[in-house]
Amino acid sequence: MEGKNAVKSVIRVATDSAPEPAGHYCQATAWNDLIFVSGQLATSADGEQNADKPFETQVRQALGNILAIVREAGSDPEHVLRITAYIVGVENWPVFNQVYAEIFGDIRPARAVVPVPELHLGYSIELEAIAVRRPVQA
Amino acid sequence: MEGKNAVKSVIRVATDSAPEPAGHYCQATAWNDLIFVSGQLATSADGEQNADKPFETQVRQALGNILAIVREAGSDPEHVLRITAYIVGVENWPVFNQVYAEIFGDIRPARAVVPVPELHLGYSIELEAIAVRRPVQA
Amino acid sequence: MEGKNAVKSVIRVATDSAPEPAGHYCQATAWNDLIFVSGQLATSADGEQNADKPFETQVRQALGNILAIVREAGSDPEHVLRITAYIVGVENWPVFNQVYAEIFGDIRPARAVVPVPELHLGYSIELEAIAVRRPVQA
Repeated sequence: MEGKNAVKSVIRVATDSAPEPAGHYCQATAWNDLIFVSGQLATSADGEQNADKPFETQVRQALGNILAIVREAGSDPEHVLRITAYIVGVENWPVFNQVYAEIFGDIRPARAVVPVPELHLGYSIELEAIAVRRPVQA
Repeated sequence: MEGKNAVKSVIRVATDSAPEPAGHYCQATAWNDLIFVSGQLATSADGEQNADKPFETQVRQALGNILAIVREAGSDPEHVLRITAYIVGVENWPVFNQVYAEIFGDIRPARAVVPVPELHLGYSIELEAIAVRRPVQA
Repeated sequence: MEGKNAVKSVIRVATDSAPEPAGHYCQATAWNDLIFVSGQLATSADGEQNADKPFETQVRQALGNILAIVREAGSDPEHVLRITAYIVGVENWPVFNQVYAEIFGDIRPARAVVPVPELHLGYSIELEAIAVRRPVQA
């Protein structure tokens, strides 16, 4: 049992609803009410690779992975604070924005879109997120 | 009215002193004392595009946008925790650093400069920020 | 002495165990229990440039810089919440992941790996981190 002076641990989030980490990281860490979600590619939760699928499909899968982890961590789309989107090819911006808007609906987290020259495993999109766990108001 | 068990909402920041979001995001979100500012290009607050302006002009405008949003969210330059700067062309680093230092003066937030191959709308710089709202000491 | 209404200051971290900032930033800022570490290249703590060294050497140095700053700020590897790794050449991903795993051991922070076209001073890796200072449990 932890006493009053025990050092609090960082929570490491794991869910089968998103792909297993492909490297030395966990799907997300949480500390107090903040959640930090690792970069998510468009791999399916069962490990299927989708780098050759259309960009729109990749956006849906990567964002699905993010939201599955966010939910596992005790949050929801309304409590996503910021998304950083790394995309290959800035010409994909309109499709990215359209699919993203469809999924988030009325919710508009802070966001940055960062074009990159390439991504791991040949993917065209990687998303990361900071969210808050739903606390009750004091 | 929210009761004791009401779920706290994420604050979404909006100001006319920075350009309207060009996509599905708000200018910034805030949660407790933290502010997450969306990626800011060098668009003027009135919507004027400046991608063809000199790099120095773009730095001033993008940083002006960041600081306008930070102020709207109840913070100030001294309470900016970290800036991430995405720049096209690492040869622009010296000018970026010089203009940035001039604007921040004695204040030195944590910072990362990330060269990218391109940016949305043809811009050469995008900035994002994490800041804190000025609380009083307990 | 600060009274009850004094505005709390952002803490700026500085240690000789990591290289002096090459531009207008501090090594890290801290606010309450969160630490934001600036982008660290593979420069040695004494200022020696290592851009021409092997990629593996650069990973060790950049991560060493991050962890030195994290420790100076009152944290440790177990309390690193997220690392963002900017690497030149996605073909360096396996070596990055291997060296990173060796250094972190059983600890798996959240992570994103972001390929970039180039980095300042010709380096092949830049790392940034968010960590928490070790508080005691209430």
